[in-house]
Amino acid sequence: MQDFATLPSKKGVYLDHNATTPLSVEVAEKVPELMMAWGNPSSIHQFGRGPKAVMREARKKLSQGLGCRDLELVFTSGGSESNTSVIRSVFDQQQLKPVADQRIRMISSSVEHPAVQQAMADLVPHGLDWVQVPVSRGGQLDLEFLEKALAEAPTALVSVMFANNETGSILPVEAACRLAHEYGALFHSDMVQALGKVPVNLADLGFDFASFSAHKFYALKGCGLLFSRTGMQLDSLIKGGRQERGRRAGTENALAIAAFGVMAGHLHEVSERAETMRTLRDFMEQQMVQRIPEITFNGHEVERLPNCTSAIIPGVDGETLLMNLDMKGFAVSTGAACSSGSPEPSPTLLAMSLSREEAQSSLRVGLGWSTTHAQVEQFVEALEKTVVRLRSFQHGENAYGEKAK
Amino acid sequence: MQDFATLPSKKGVYLDHNATTPLSVEVAEKVPELMMAWGNPSSIHQFGRGPKAVMREARKKLSQGLGCRDLELVFTSGGSESNTSVIRSVFDQQQLKPVADQRIRMISSSVEHPAVQQAMADLVPHGLDWVQVPVSRGGQLDLEFLEKALAEAPTALVSVMFANNETGSILPVEAACRLAHEYGALFHSDMVQALGKVPVNLADLGFDFASFSAHKFYALKGCGLLFSRTGMQLDSLIKGGRQERGRRAGTENALAIAAFGVMAGHLHEVSERAETMRTLRDFMEQQMVQRIPEITFNGHEVERLPNCTSAIIPGVDGETLLMNLDMKGFAVSTGAACSSGSPEPSPTLLAMSLSREEAQSSLRVGLGWSTTHAQVEQFVEALEKTVVRLRSFQHGENAYGEKAK
Repeated sequence: MQDFATLPSKKGVYLDHNATTPLSVEVAEKVPELMMAWGNPSSIHQFGRGPKAVMREARKKLSQGLGCRDLELVFTSGGSESNTSVIRSVFDQQQLKPVADQRIRMISSSVEHPAVQQAMADLVPHGLDWVQVPVSRGGQLDLEFLEKALAEAPTALVSVMFANNETGSILPVEAACRLAHEYGALFHSDMVQALGKVPVNLADLGFDFASFSAHKFYALKGCGLLFSRTGMQLDSLIKGGRQERGRRAGTENALAIAAFGVMAGHLHEVSERAETMRTLRDFMEQQMVQRIPEITFNGHEVERLPNCTSAIIPGVDGETLLMNLDMKGFAVSTGAACSSGSPEPSPTLLAMSLSREEAQSSLRVGLGWSTTHAQVEQFVEALEKTVVRLRSFQHGENAYGEKAK
Repeated sequence: MQDFATLPSKKGVYLDHNATTPLSVEVAEKVPELMMAWGNPSSIHQFGRGPKAVMREARKKLSQGLGCRDLELVFTSGGSESNTSVIRSVFDQQQLKPVADQRIRMISSSVEHPAVQQAMADLVPHGLDWVQVPVSRGGQLDLEFLEKALAEAPTALVSVMFANNETGSILPVEAACRLAHEYGALFHSDMVQALGKVPVNLADLGFDFASFSAHKFYALKGCGLLFSRTGMQLDSLIKGGRQERGRRAGTENALAIAAFGVMAGHLHEVSERAETMRTLRDFMEQQMVQRIPEITFNGHEVERLPNCTSAIIPGVDGETLLMNLDMKGFAVSTGAACSSGSPEPSPTLLAMSLSREEAQSSLRVGLGWSTTHAQVEQFVEALEKTVVRLRSFQHGENAYGEKAK
């Protein structure tokens, strides 16, 4: 398989592919041509027909690559919009049902992306009964807890992410979906982290709804997908015109949709690219264990995404480590990008029963399709040196003024 | 003033600038460079700093150009999202107030964009008391009706568009805002059609919220603005991270935001460009009156956008006319693009008391910054010939199988 080319960078080695991916060179090269189709896809004159055709083509390639029907895919502005749309749509529909004074129940895992967590949390004062299923330190979702919660009260929706964005641990979504359906609940999965890392076949998975994001798959920002299984009723979160068959209003971002379509042409490569990343990641972890005493990994008891490592490095503050590595030209993260800059340790890691100290000593490394063996070697080298140096200060204070371990 | 260059087209003459605008050549030329800042703006390493700086710059230029503070601007995915966000945010906040069994009242004009209409209509079953203020055939908003509605019951929000997207008529938004504030209601204006056509100073206008869209102003699709006055509480419609200070979650579309920022550099030209368009539009209307018997114009009693003409051409079906002009290489529309293809006549024109027949004989022509005198002359020539030919069939049936006038 050919090397996968992404936009070159003078900034150093990018190892944060779970936050966003660099733009594919193929996509970047096609953008100038794609921009020529600037018309409004809803216009019935010729200026509308170009972008409309471009969108049709992209939808077809994406549905083929994801194993679903064309019209089961709705284009949104991104993963957060897709997640919110499903939750709000199901809630609003339930609210209009003539049920006697009964709270609407939704169940999620305790380690969902903030888009799912916040969408549900914000509905609690409006009458949502929100149950969160715990996830163990090793990354295991408590399926017994889920079944008990389903048996306890009628449930409108179960939402469990395919893979966690901070630890990369893969959740038992197929089992969770079967349980949800058994108890008459709808099932949604935030699959944002799955795209490009595991082959996806939506027909086989049997979910009712699933969310995806283009910028996690080497395409442009501002574009997401919402899979809505045939027969599902999906109310548009954004109100307005009848775009996307009434399921998502607003003039379509045909450029970003077309770019996503270009990347859809690479979905058949996922298995092979994933194996390449897995080999590289496993090599990296092996090197880390050999060279960094006391290092441990999060979410290790379950299957993980092939590109991602979440490590605890005792005696080192994650954010200080990140900034030191950044100065040396290596981009990694302490947790999700969307909560970066927050002085609080990752809620996901805390939900997995890590201590605050452990969560604050965590580091996420995310490889991508264009990551090379040489980059990983350079990174481990830099990591080792930085950790040794930071640990030599270990009787001092960390970046938060707390005594280090 | 220099000519304004937009992407060239082999498809003919584009006269549908109210649906969307062609991409500015300056924007298109900058896109390849802007794409290099593909990082996640929330990442704290160097890959995040590039797009973050790009966004800061764009926000600054936009706030300067629109006469507001940097942090009063929230980037969204477009005008429809901005409109929906305000309405849903105000409604949700009202719902959580401990008021005794009182319906939440919102007031809009009867000719709002579907994003406002639908956002309010969908909330009615959830407890919204929605009042629509009529607009006359000539385009006049009934301010007395508005005041009565405000006096009748406490009102949470008044939403009146700056200018109508189908007729171009400008609504008395400043008077409506004063009335709203007098009665303790918040005021929002859908200003999507104003951008690039009238100079905008948000501080002078005194609105609480306003919506804008980048693709109506020669920039990319997938980007909008929501002005939220200092002190206003705005809940994110899309749930998730703390982007945009918690007012709009989801990874930011830094590319489209940067492109919008490039166009913000042209906001100081609006007055002059508007006068050029007005001269051209007035010439076009004068030619139309001279050459097309019985033609009349919608929304003519009030001030109108300088670029837009909404005409009724009796004896001619608007959609047939549009398709005939399209074949000759002229792109115009019958009404809003977002409802194109619908066999129903424009709800906006019906709300302005036009008959179904008149609404179906309507044509919208929208000039832009790059429209030339020669293009307008060619268009009027083609329009005259087409109308003569279609009217010669006037004893036949129109595209809807109805007897033509």
